[in-house]
Amino acid sequence: MKNYYKNKKVLITGGLGFLGSNLAIELVGLGAKVVVIDSLIPEYGGNLFNVEGIADKIKINISDVRDDHSMKYLVRGVDHLFNLAGQTSHMDSMSDPLADLDINARAQLHILEACRKYNPGISIVYASTRQIYGKPEYLPVDEKHPLCPVDINGVNKLAGEQYHMLYHRVYGIRVCVLRLTNTIGPRMRIKDSRQTFLGIWIRFLLEGKPFEVWGGDQIRDFTYSRDATSAFLIAGSDKKAAGNIFNLGGDGSIKLKDLAELLVAVNGEGSYKIKEFPADRKKIDIDDYYADHSKFTKQCRWKPKVRLKQALKETLDYYRENAGNYI
Amino acid sequence: MKNYYKNKKVLITGGLGFLGSNLAIELVGLGAKVVVIDSLIPEYGGNLFNVEGIADKIKINISDVRDDHSMKYLVRGVDHLFNLAGQTSHMDSMSDPLADLDINARAQLHILEACRKYNPGISIVYASTRQIYGKPEYLPVDEKHPLCPVDINGVNKLAGEQYHMLYHRVYGIRVCVLRLTNTIGPRMRIKDSRQTFLGIWIRFLLEGKPFEVWGGDQIRDFTYSRDATSAFLIAGSDKKAAGNIFNLGGDGSIKLKDLAELLVAVNGEGSYKIKEFPADRKKIDIDDYYADHSKFTKQCRWKPKVRLKQALKETLDYYRENAGNYI
Repeated sequence: MKNYYKNKKVLITGGLGFLGSNLAIELVGLGAKVVVIDSLIPEYGGNLFNVEGIADKIKINISDVRDDHSMKYLVRGVDHLFNLAGQTSHMDSMSDPLADLDINARAQLHILEACRKYNPGISIVYASTRQIYGKPEYLPVDEKHPLCPVDINGVNKLAGEQYHMLYHRVYGIRVCVLRLTNTIGPRMRIKDSRQTFLGIWIRFLLEGKPFEVWGGDQIRDFTYSRDATSAFLIAGSDKKAAGNIFNLGGDGSIKLKDLAELLVAVNGEGSYKIKEFPADRKKIDIDDYYADHSKFTKQCRWKPKVRLKQALKETLDYYRENAGNYI
Repeated sequence: MKNYYKNKKVLITGGLGFLGSNLAIELVGLGAKVVVIDSLIPEYGGNLFNVEGIADKIKINISDVRDDHSMKYLVRGVDHLFNLAGQTSHMDSMSDPLADLDINARAQLHILEACRKYNPGISIVYASTRQIYGKPEYLPVDEKHPLCPVDINGVNKLAGEQYHMLYHRVYGIRVCVLRLTNTIGPRMRIKDSRQTFLGIWIRFLLEGKPFEVWGGDQIRDFTYSRDATSAFLIAGSDKKAAGNIFNLGGDGSIKLKDLAELLVAVNGEGSYKIKEFPADRKKIDIDDYYADHSKFTKQCRWKPKVRLKQALKETLDYYRENAGNYI
């Protein structure tokens, strides 16, 4: 893979966001020619600071994936599309379901239609989510688990994923789908909990305030950003990945209250409060979740390498240095 | 049920279409106050002739379910919504995926948001489709079968169904989902195969031309319109139906070439040609399908009563009399 991406033309939607920017940085290091697309909608993950170190080595195209016309132009001549743009907040999807639909489903059809018409030889990796499984019927959750999303975001992300697989089956476009679990690391949104609850935990911790743990007994797993970007790079370059759906996962699983303890310990100071789950969030909560990612390991040898403790340490280090650009 | 719908205010989306109009006719007979909504888009199933006998007893509102504003007004004060408006053509969903998305998914969110905000006490029956199962992994297909749609129409109808179930779970709106299989009978579209291939078969038969059977070995099941409307009426009135998803089915299953034979026999004359499956349709075909509808039978005592032969006879009789209004 070291040489695979050299001089490859790569397009990243959501490329100023958390994972998109980490991926762009990796790809620049591998010698790829990178164009990032981002809408920079203030409530979403895009942040120009995320690409500060590589801004002169990439092309930044500010546009919204809902803008059919820009997508028709931008997909042309590209070798790889990493399709990461999305609305990620579960609560926002309930309060504004149509915006979630337009970004996570309707825009995906735009993008796929643009690829089909103007660049059918493209290779696409689509960032899907564990949210499409809904409340797990068994653990760990593998890719054969029933799909029964519990919120609007899950329904729309499922449609987005199914469009991608359909364009692979019917039109032969090379597609790999990665179903992400909680992903954490430098460049994630920490202003609020729209991208991940860990963001707001870290913000409060750095501001010297107790952070809130809702419930606390829920079990979750976490992928560190460096492991996630390596998953995307493998999914794009390994021919065995084409036409497949893979779960990502992390270094084991952990109860949220134990994660809170670990975060405070790694930080060296800080505190948290256990709070009751707010009723409106409880209604769309998925209870316990952790992924079985062995299919991806078996087929493409991807494995999460960063231990959770190390992931938290590196993340805290990053925000201790750069919090001003994220809050 | 005889008295249940008396004086009930009932709204039917797609109410000038095949099933919508049959349902409106039944409901008028039961003493309900019926408003039908239809866009009368020429390629879809709406036809003013469908309600000729009851036109002075119902309110006809010509509007598109994509029109958010009209829906916000029309759902107010209604007891029952039979939500049947949809784009039904699988091929059209592939050539114009965004139109299919806007009708079968986006408009459904409009409708549900309108109900949540302006009429949360409404009871909704949603017309879903067996298309969301994709290629059956086993037969007969029950409601627990995996959902893996093979065309854009299937993806969008699945999203539409999941929105409905979600608004039931999260907001407590009374919802029942019926997954329809091939439905046939008077008032269906016979101009082309956009609603059902049987439509175009009947048109050719009545015009004295051989109709085309593509493949012929595919197994299908058929619900007669009278059985389908009785399913909708039960789903709306029986409290045990609320929060449930039910398959509809029919009088057994049959290979398409045997159905062609039966249709010609019932008609007393006519002929057909077996043709190879066109490549673009083969790619989105679901192979054999027939439903297990025992869940609906057990929970709500619905059962298809009309034998296939009788269904074909009544349908042919209707179009022999009224073909001019449909071609």
